Amino acid sequence: MNVTLKESSLEKFFNPSSVVIIGASNAPFNLGATICKCLKEYISYRGTVYAINRAGEAVCGCDGFTSVHDLTEPVELAVIITPARVVPQFVRDCGAKGIQHIVIESSGFSEQGDEGKRLQSEIDEAARQYGMRILGPNCLGVLDIQSRFCCFYGAYPEIVEVFDKPGGVSYIIQSGGVGVLLLESLMTDVQGPHKMVSIGNKSDVDEADLIEYFNRDGTQVIAIYLEHVGNGEKLMSMARRVSKPILVFKSGRTAEGTAAALSHTAGMASNDAVFESACRQAGIIRLRSVGELHSMPKMLTEMPLLRGNRIAVFTNSGAFGSISADLMVEAGLALPRLGAASRELLAKIGGVFNINNPVDIGPAPPQTYLDIFEILLSDKEIDGLLLMSSIWREFIIDVMKELVEMCKRYDKPAAIYTPNSVARILSVRKEFGLPLFDTAEEAVRALAVSHEQFRYHRKKENPYARNHQESA
Amino acid sequence: MNVTLKESSLEKFFNPSSVVIIGASNAPFNLGATICKCLKEYISYRGTVYAINRAGEAVCGCDGFTSVHDLTEPVELAVIITPARVVPQFVRDCGAKGIQHIVIESSGFSEQGDEGKRLQSEIDEAARQYGMRILGPNCLGVLDIQSRFCCFYGAYPEIVEVFDKPGGVSYIIQSGGVGVLLLESLMTDVQGPHKMVSIGNKSDVDEADLIEYFNRDGTQVIAIYLEHVGNGEKLMSMARRVSKPILVFKSGRTAEGTAAALSHTAGMASNDAVFESACRQAGIIRLRSVGELHSMPKMLTEMPLLRGNRIAVFTNSGAFGSISADLMVEAGLALPRLGAASRELLAKIGGVFNINNPVDIGPAPPQTYLDIFEILLSDKEIDGLLLMSSIWREFIIDVMKELVEMCKRYDKPAAIYTPNSVARILSVRKEFGLPLFDTAEEAVRALAVSHEQFRYHRKKENPYARNHQESA
Repeated sequence: MNVTLKESSLEKFFNPSSVVIIGASNAPFNLGATICKCLKEYISYRGTVYAINRAGEAVCGCDGFTSVHDLTEPVELAVIITPARVVPQFVRDCGAKGIQHIVIESSGFSEQGDEGKRLQSEIDEAARQYGMRILGPNCLGVLDIQSRFCCFYGAYPEIVEVFDKPGGVSYIIQSGGVGVLLLESLMTDVQGPHKMVSIGNKSDVDEADLIEYFNRDGTQVIAIYLEHVGNGEKLMSMARRVSKPILVFKSGRTAEGTAAALSHTAGMASNDAVFESACRQAGIIRLRSVGELHSMPKMLTEMPLLRGNRIAVFTNSGAFGSISADLMVEAGLALPRLGAASRELLAKIGGVFNINNPVDIGPAPPQTYLDIFEILLSDKEIDGLLLMSSIWREFIIDVMKELVEMCKRYDKPAAIYTPNSVARILSVRKEFGLPLFDTAEEAVRALAVSHEQFRYHRKKENPYARNHQESA
Repeated sequence: MNVTLKESSLEKFFNPSSVVIIGASNAPFNLGATICKCLKEYISYRGTVYAINRAGEAVCGCDGFTSVHDLTEPVELAVIITPARVVPQFVRDCGAKGIQHIVIESSGFSEQGDEGKRLQSEIDEAARQYGMRILGPNCLGVLDIQSRFCCFYGAYPEIVEVFDKPGGVSYIIQSGGVGVLLLESLMTDVQGPHKMVSIGNKSDVDEADLIEYFNRDGTQVIAIYLEHVGNGEKLMSMARRVSKPILVFKSGRTAEGTAAALSHTAGMASNDAVFESACRQAGIIRLRSVGELHSMPKMLTEMPLLRGNRIAVFTNSGAFGSISADLMVEAGLALPRLGAASRELLAKIGGVFNINNPVDIGPAPPQTYLDIFEILLSDKEIDGLLLMSSIWREFIIDVMKELVEMCKRYDKPAAIYTPNSVARILSVRKEFGLPLFDTAEEAVRALAVSHEQFRYHRKKENPYARNHQESA
C-alpha cells in the first residue's frame, strides 16, 4: 500500500468540502442531528452537509436521503453514528459510492465482546477492499478550527468560542470525554486548539498517523491522551522523526487503570515502564495528568524554550520564594546564587528585600518590576525566570505583558504564577491572553517541560551533537 | 507560669472588645489606616477602635491619640504597625498601660540581621516583664468570622464576602501572602474560614498554642502553613492530644527552600524526614501544596470520614474510570471488584456500560444516578464513593446535592469531581455549595486524606485499639 498516498489522504478528515451524516434524523435525542446542528447553526461550516435516515428527511436544514446510494453529488467524508450492527453495511455502501474517508462514532465494536469484534473485522475488511481510511470506531470525530469543521456529537452552542481563538496545539484524544473537557478548559486559556481528533478504537488511523499529519500542518504542539498503544514501534519511530513538541498523557499506568481502559476503548495492556523508557528515547514528553494537556502547551507556544536549567525566581511573597525553591529542586531545576554583577544592580533598586535568588520585593512600582526583569533576563548565568507576584495592583497585568515581550527579546522563557485565587487567574488569563499558570506547581512543571523539549529538539535536529554542549 | 491562664488568654486576640492600632495615620499609603478602614467600613466590627499616630488625629472615624498613655478607656488588644526601631517602646507603653495582648505586624526583627535580633530581644524582655502575649512580629494578624474582627493590613472591601459564609476551618499561617491567597480562594469554596491567624516570627504565640486554642473553640479542622518549626516537641505533643484534624503544609523541604524560608520568617532549619516521621506519630496530616490548604478541608467538613480504603468509582466517562483507577492505586486506595449482589442490582438498571468497578454509565436520567448511589453506598464491602460525572445536564447538580445527603445517611463519604473546566466547577461549587474538587487528582487525594484522618482519630480517641480492627 502506498504510504504517501495514505498520509496525505488524512486531509479530508479535517477539511472535507462535503460530508454525509449517516444516522442523523429528527427523532428526539438523535445524536447525528446534533452534528448537523453544530455544522449548520453553531460554527457555520462552509461545505455541504447531507443526512441519511430511514425517512430520507432533511435534518437541521441538511438534505436527507434514505441511502448513501441516493446522494447525487460526490461526498468527501462520511460520519456514521448508528447502532453498531448496521455500521458494516453503511461502510460498504460508502465504499461502493466512492467515499474514501469514514468517521465511525458508534460504539459496540472490539471494546464490547465477541460480537463487537466480529463487526469490527467486517469494517476492517470493507476498508481494505475499497481502500478507505477509517477514523474510530467508538470515537467523537474531528474538530478543525481553520476549516471550521466539527463532527463531535452532542456539541453545544458555546463550542463556537473555541473557533474564535485559534491556537497552535493539535490534540489526539482516545476518549470523547477528555476531548470535551479539554475544549471547555481551553475556553479560559490563552489559545483554543488548532485541531482535535478523537481516535477511539483506532482500527485504522492511529496516533502515529496523526503525529505525521500534524508535523506537516500549522500545528506547533502535538498533545495526546492515550489509553493504550496499539503499535508501539510505529508510534516511537514516528515520534523520533518529529521535532515539534509531542506531549502524552497515558492512563492505564497500573493494572487497575489498564483493566478500566480496556473496557472503554479496546486494546492491549502494556507495561508502563517500557512505555516510559520508549517515550524518553523517542523524545516524547510524558505528562502527569489530563490537566497538563491544556495547561502545559502554552509554555511552548507563548514562550521561548528553556535552554538550560538555571532559574531566577522573582516574587513579592517570601513564602512563595521558599515554596517554589522546594518545587524547583524537586523538578531537577537549579536556583543558582546570582553573580556579583546582578546582585549589585539589584541592590541599587529600592524595595528589594532579598537580592539573592529568590529575589523578593515589597510593594514596588511597575518600573522596579521591569528593571528586575531586565537584570535577571540579561544575566548570562540565568536561563529562565519564575515570576510569582500576586496581582495586588492592576499594573501587574501590564508588567506581565511587558515580560512576555522581553522574554522573546532575550530568547529566555518565564513561567508566571500569580498567587491569587484560581478564579482570578482564569479571568485575567482569558481577558488579557497572558500565559498564567493555575498553581505554583504548574508553573515550575512548565519550566521542566520546556527544558525537556529543548533537549529533545536539539537531539532530533542534530542527533550527533556532543554531550558537553548540554548546558543542564 | 500558669499554663491554663496563658491558654485562655489567647481569646483576646480573636474577640477583643476594643483595639488600638499603633501606627495608623492619615499619611498616604499608611498600612495602619487600612486596618481601621477594614474594621469600621468593610466588616462592621462591633468594638471600639483607636488610632495612635504623631498628630493624634482620628483615622477612618477611629479616635486618635499621640500615645497609648492618653487612652482614656481600657483597651484589650494593641496592633503595632510602625517601623521596627520604635516597636519595643510601644510594647513597653502597652505593658505599662495594662494592655496584655499585642499583635506586632511590623517586620525587621529576627528575620533581618543582628539589629533585628536585638530589637526582638527587647520585645521579648518587655513581654516577660509585663506578662503580655505577643503575636508576631512580622505577621498579618488575626481574622475571626464570629466576632467580626480582622486586623490584616491591606485588606480590600471584598473581604466582607468571607464573613458572609462562616466555615469550620481555622488557619494558622506563617506568611501573610499565603493567608491572603487562602482567603481569596475560599471565596469560591463551599465555606469561608472559621478563624485565621498569621504567626510570622512567632516570638511568643506559636502553632502549638493555637492548635490548643482551636481545639476548644468551634473549629472543625485546623490547617497550618509552616516555614519552620520552632519547638518541635511542643508542637507534636500538642498535636497528639488533639483529635480534630490537623493538616500541615510546610515549605523548606529542600536545602534551597529552607534557605529561602529563613530569610522570610526567622527560624532554624529542620530535617524534613524527621518532620515527616514526627507528623505521622503525632497524627498530623501532611499536605503537598498550598492549594491543598483550601481544597482538602471540605472533604472533612462536608463528608463523613472514610473508614476503610475500598472505593467504588462511578463515572459517565470511561476515560475517567481508567484515570481514577490509576490515581487510586497510586494513593493506596483499593478499587475492589463489586460483589455479586451489587452487580446483579446494577445489571437491572438500564444504561450501565460497566457493572464492575469503575461503574460506567451512558447518558442516563437522574433516577439512574440515585439508584446507583444507593446500591454502592449500601454495599457493605464499599467504604466510600468517587463520583466522576460531568455536568452534562443541569439535573446533575440536584443529583449531587442528593448524594451529599445520602452520604450522611450511610455515614460514608463521596469525593466528587465533575470532568468540566475549572471555571465551571468553581461557579457550580460557589452557587450550590457543593464540595466539588478542581481535578480528579484532588478528589482522589481527598479520599486518602479522609482515611488518614479516620485512622489518626481512632488512634487518638482510643490509643489501645487493636490493630486487627483496622479495615485498611
